[in-house]
Amino acid sequence: MLEQIHSILQNNCKLKTDLPVVVGVSGGPDSLCLLDVLWQFGYPLVVAHLDHGLRSESAAEAQMVEQHAHRIGARFVFERVDVAAYASQEGFTIEEAARSARYLFLFEQARIHQAQAVAVGHTANDQVETVLMHLMRGAGLSGLRGMSAYNLPNAWSQVMPLVRPLLSTWRAEILTYLAQRGLQPNIDPSNQDTRYYRNRLRHELLPFLENLNPGVSLRLWQMADILHEEDEVLDSAASQAWQLCLSTQGEGYIAFDALAFADQPKSLQRRLARMAIARLRPGQRDIGYETIERMLEFLHMPTRTNLVDLAAGLNLVLEGGCLWLVTHESDLPVNSWPQLETGFEQLLEIPTLLSLPGDWQLSIEFLPASPELKVQAISNPDPYQIWLDADELSLPLHLRTRLPGEHFRPLGMAGHSLKLSDFMVNVHIPRRARQNWPLVACANEVAWVPGYRCAEPFAISVRTQRLLRIALKPVSINAGV
Amino acid sequence: MLEQIHSILQNNCKLKTDLPVVVGVSGGPDSLCLLDVLWQFGYPLVVAHLDHGLRSESAAEAQMVEQHAHRIGARFVFERVDVAAYASQEGFTIEEAARSARYLFLFEQARIHQAQAVAVGHTANDQVETVLMHLMRGAGLSGLRGMSAYNLPNAWSQVMPLVRPLLSTWRAEILTYLAQRGLQPNIDPSNQDTRYYRNRLRHELLPFLENLNPGVSLRLWQMADILHEEDEVLDSAASQAWQLCLSTQGEGYIAFDALAFADQPKSLQRRLARMAIARLRPGQRDIGYETIERMLEFLHMPTRTNLVDLAAGLNLVLEGGCLWLVTHESDLPVNSWPQLETGFEQLLEIPTLLSLPGDWQLSIEFLPASPELKVQAISNPDPYQIWLDADELSLPLHLRTRLPGEHFRPLGMAGHSLKLSDFMVNVHIPRRARQNWPLVACANEVAWVPGYRCAEPFAISVRTQRLLRIALKPVSINAGV
Repeated sequence: MLEQIHSILQNNCKLKTDLPVVVGVSGGPDSLCLLDVLWQFGYPLVVAHLDHGLRSESAAEAQMVEQHAHRIGARFVFERVDVAAYASQEGFTIEEAARSARYLFLFEQARIHQAQAVAVGHTANDQVETVLMHLMRGAGLSGLRGMSAYNLPNAWSQVMPLVRPLLSTWRAEILTYLAQRGLQPNIDPSNQDTRYYRNRLRHELLPFLENLNPGVSLRLWQMADILHEEDEVLDSAASQAWQLCLSTQGEGYIAFDALAFADQPKSLQRRLARMAIARLRPGQRDIGYETIERMLEFLHMPTRTNLVDLAAGLNLVLEGGCLWLVTHESDLPVNSWPQLETGFEQLLEIPTLLSLPGDWQLSIEFLPASPELKVQAISNPDPYQIWLDADELSLPLHLRTRLPGEHFRPLGMAGHSLKLSDFMVNVHIPRRARQNWPLVACANEVAWVPGYRCAEPFAISVRTQRLLRIALKPVSINAGV
Repeated sequence: MLEQIHSILQNNCKLKTDLPVVVGVSGGPDSLCLLDVLWQFGYPLVVAHLDHGLRSESAAEAQMVEQHAHRIGARFVFERVDVAAYASQEGFTIEEAARSARYLFLFEQARIHQAQAVAVGHTANDQVETVLMHLMRGAGLSGLRGMSAYNLPNAWSQVMPLVRPLLSTWRAEILTYLAQRGLQPNIDPSNQDTRYYRNRLRHELLPFLENLNPGVSLRLWQMADILHEEDEVLDSAASQAWQLCLSTQGEGYIAFDALAFADQPKSLQRRLARMAIARLRPGQRDIGYETIERMLEFLHMPTRTNLVDLAAGLNLVLEGGCLWLVTHESDLPVNSWPQLETGFEQLLEIPTLLSLPGDWQLSIEFLPASPELKVQAISNPDPYQIWLDADELSLPLHLRTRLPGEHFRPLGMAGHSLKLSDFMVNVHIPRRARQNWPLVACANEVAWVPGYRCAEPFAISVRTQRLLRIALKPVSINAGV
């Protein structure tokens, strides 16, 4: 057993013997064993004990842990918390409050003592109970894989690891070890209290399962070990998918490229959905199977409004070719789009350089139709820049928003005309941006929808003698004009 | 419910209405519902009923199914099997024998009737029971994902799909449906018999879990749905890893490149191990966690003999840079190596063309050191072909096996000399092949270890005036010399 733990300490927990470790010690068998093992292997220790103030024996237990710490020459730190009060104040169950208070205390001590890690005494039995708990409450791999011997980042810190060196050690082994070492643990009577859910698993469900299938605990532990590694692979696949699918993110919103997202296997879509929700609502629990399914289905069957209230104060929006997840309190970012004021219309001189709202700038100039410029025009990759056939346009040009019922003859549709509003839907101009989208029009029709398409009649051709170059550019403070 | 099943039939089960479907119908609620639903949706049906001969009512039940089939104008096929006899004959439990006999019958009928699929009536409840069964027996994702709505290949056929259209439908919905349709199912009293393991799960474990956590069945079903997709992603990752790591395979053996294998994440190593075992021992069950762990650990801590008896009549061998999995009844393939007879030694004339054991051929010739040939010599990709500096060699050359304690000065080690036996270990010449490996030597030292390295003093250089080309080639019957 010691050999196995030693290997786990070095290889899995990544502990070194030259930096302090904060050990959470209740004084029960598991934490007492952990403390003794770490001490035997020569780690500098800070013994941290939290008195939950829930039981009358707790002060005596704290004293016992303190004495043990002094005996082995380890530093002892102590705090007393009124867990019952903390629970009712935060709306936690007693179990949740005790856990939260304990970890807050341990990680605070780790910072104070510049420790390399916080170590806690969870055993193989705890692992099995955790897996069963997740199973009963409904969980994917991330729950079924159970706890990890090494966790960084964890719920309590981005930089301080939480390690569990006894995760492969069974309680029976621990009791034998303590007896051999002549160590007397505290026995917490609340471990027998079946009002606590975990205790019901331990004292009712597990014996029931062992009776049905002897050895089931070991097999559940092995299952968790297998699933842990499987989850790691899927985690890294999901991180790659995140890079691939993320279109933009900011305060209160995340947008995935809708096509790239839909292209992922369903399990990675589910993971991306969970990751996005977790980033926007870090504290949120209980995001269930149905919520995630709704998010995936939304992509394939968008509602008429293209917006649904998902859960946890989050809206889903399909817009501009992106799947947006937005908190209720945030607006979608719009300043990346060119927008005119409502009803804006202005005659355009040529050449001209015009500043628009939202730090966009419009420039227009005539250019000779040299072969070089024609090639440049045809191979232009910037959708906010266009070269038109100047002689086909009936000048002057106007910059304006769309008119009710207006039509448009997009390039590539053989001169066919369709409603401009339908065109805007087809090319996924965000609904909110359509009304005030800037258009360049000549006397009788729209010549160019910036960012998307020019009209067929004004596109350059072999016959073009004179070019009109129009560009819409965001004004960057760094880049000058 | 019908809408959901309709979508599953089309999208998940991939059934078309123009080809027959063989439906397994016991006459119980699930299969009767499946039959009625398929009939309503207009699929051409072959109703297949197997009388297991286990209960006195079975003949009457078969008749009832036959009458129903006639009523809806479907073809009816029937067989009677003595499952009890079959079980004792094959060493199966009654459950295993019934299952095996049933599927053999169904897939035989599907072939006879040129059906597009075999359909069976497993429900969402069956799915939950299956997941629990795998959980209790210890399983990774491939068990926890439960059954699939569409399986191809499956245990019974490489080409005929097995579909389960009711896998998302709960038994309670089915009973309501049957009542509405006025259909009267057979009730199989053996479903209550808790001597059968599945029935104990159904009648004891599930009620226990539901009592502890109401709604746990639904959550287990959802978990299986999530894990199904996760398993698919890992399956395809494992197939890619298989391509990447497979070195060679044949009758009774599979070899992975040891470095490539060790480079995979642990979960994919586990999957590769399981895939390899399944290919060499297709019928084998009960390959446990420990066996797979032993296989992975073997790679990192090879035993002194480089061979262990793994399990299921399979040996693990680490040799020639490969991890071999070999059945006890097979030998490792050796005829791909060049080997001399023990103690072989022969003077080599130049030019020469010499046949060796195992269909290898040695050729030697002088060539002028033209710039073209020098370039060819330096960029030679074939390790069994070498160009040496003819004037540096003290002729004549010998072809022979290694001498005790012999040394060698490999190219690239600045003329440094080391034991030839150590060199052979370093470059991973398989242990069994070292003693009889062919060597080309001149008077006082080894000039070339075919397949690996020539000696530094005889390598060609800018000063080389005359080349000696030596080639060792396998004689292929197709390729001539």
